[in-house]
Amino acid sequence: MKHATEYLTFETPHRRDYLNITDRVEAFVRQSGIHHGLVLVNPMHITAAVYVNDDERGLIADIDDWLERLAPHEPVSGYRHNVGEDNADAHLKRQLMAHQVVLAITDGKLDLGPWEQVFYAEFDGRRKKRVVVKVMGI
Amino acid sequence: MKHATEYLTFETPHRRDYLNITDRVEAFVRQSGIHHGLVLVNPMHITAAVYVNDDERGLIADIDDWLERLAPHEPVSGYRHNVGEDNADAHLKRQLMAHQVVLAITDGKLDLGPWEQVFYAEFDGRRKKRVVVKVMGI
Amino acid sequence: MKHATEYLTFETPHRRDYLNITDRVEAFVRQSGIHHGLVLVNPMHITAAVYVNDDERGLIADIDDWLERLAPHEPVSGYRHNVGEDNADAHLKRQLMAHQVVLAITDGKLDLGPWEQVFYAEFDGRRKKRVVVKVMGI
Repeated sequence: MKHATEYLTFETPHRRDYLNITDRVEAFVRQSGIHHGLVLVNPMHITAAVYVNDDERGLIADIDDWLERLAPHEPVSGYRHNVGEDNADAHLKRQLMAHQVVLAITDGKLDLGPWEQVFYAEFDGRRKKRVVVKVMGI
Repeated sequence: MKHATEYLTFETPHRRDYLNITDRVEAFVRQSGIHHGLVLVNPMHITAAVYVNDDERGLIADIDDWLERLAPHEPVSGYRHNVGEDNADAHLKRQLMAHQVVLAITDGKLDLGPWEQVFYAEFDGRRKKRVVVKVMGI
Repeated sequence: MKHATEYLTFETPHRRDYLNITDRVEAFVRQSGIHHGLVLVNPMHITAAVYVNDDERGLIADIDDWLERLAPHEPVSGYRHNVGEDNADAHLKRQLMAHQVVLAITDGKLDLGPWEQVFYAEFDGRRKKRVVVKVMGI
């Protein structure tokens, strides 16, 4: 069994941002030399998520609107967590997006469907954050 | 370490359908000859989900109603993604259902609790879709 | 490849409870002797979830309020599942919390960010329930 670990770092310009990181995960899988296995892509911060969905600008805007509707940022004082902080909504939004993904590796590549793209979703940005990529297989 | 990969194909009759696929996952795990490990069950399409919950008709109807309430199909024009498409809600519903599962394999079987059942949830059906089942272990 | 399996048991005093189980998962990973790999932490009951988020009292109260808003317990008769039962909301709440996590193991430890804590979330407590912890690696 082989394994490999990588830490991706992000610092996004806005409070909320959605970055397609498929190529970076794919590149690390290739570099690992693992042909069959699993890869975990997990944000190490609890106000961010990694998810798989479409890389389509309209959908990303819909996701952002929808998260705001189900877990609104305002009123900031409506959350008990927001004492000296204003990111309670980010902790909830990341739960709605299920926060992490595990992907199959087959024949040395991410075994994704035609439209599956891996995203880093930032809900409390403008500071450095890390995502761990852990590959296991043979 | 051993590994095995299977692709399940579904073409459901309605826009939304919920299929119990536990037996199919279990059968593939048995066939793989892997006794201890993990299995990823991941829809390869981004308008579907795999989840674990109860195989009880009332609950499935409750889940369907609830998804419609939190991520409604109508009005179709309310989503920016829906330009020449009408499935934006399906992309959101699959996020609410957390879209994929990883299951433990112990002594050659899925290590599930008494009521855990694995479901394929279709949110934009009436066409062929695939689910990848990736088994790793010894 | 090595593997190890543990079953944690919980019986919480209220219908809904949130327990930090990071130390218990960490202890089992250490005991397994696995240095690099993955660990699945999965509730074996479908009215509970395992999730990763902040161990902060205000946030836990916010999460509980928010789950009640998006998947309310009352009216009990509003759910078709609730025939001789009253826990339909628990089945939905656990979906919102994405129900399970997979964690990376690096150098014999859980590879978590500074605030990542693993929680057992009970949505239909006051009875014994189990969580399977499955470790795979080398």
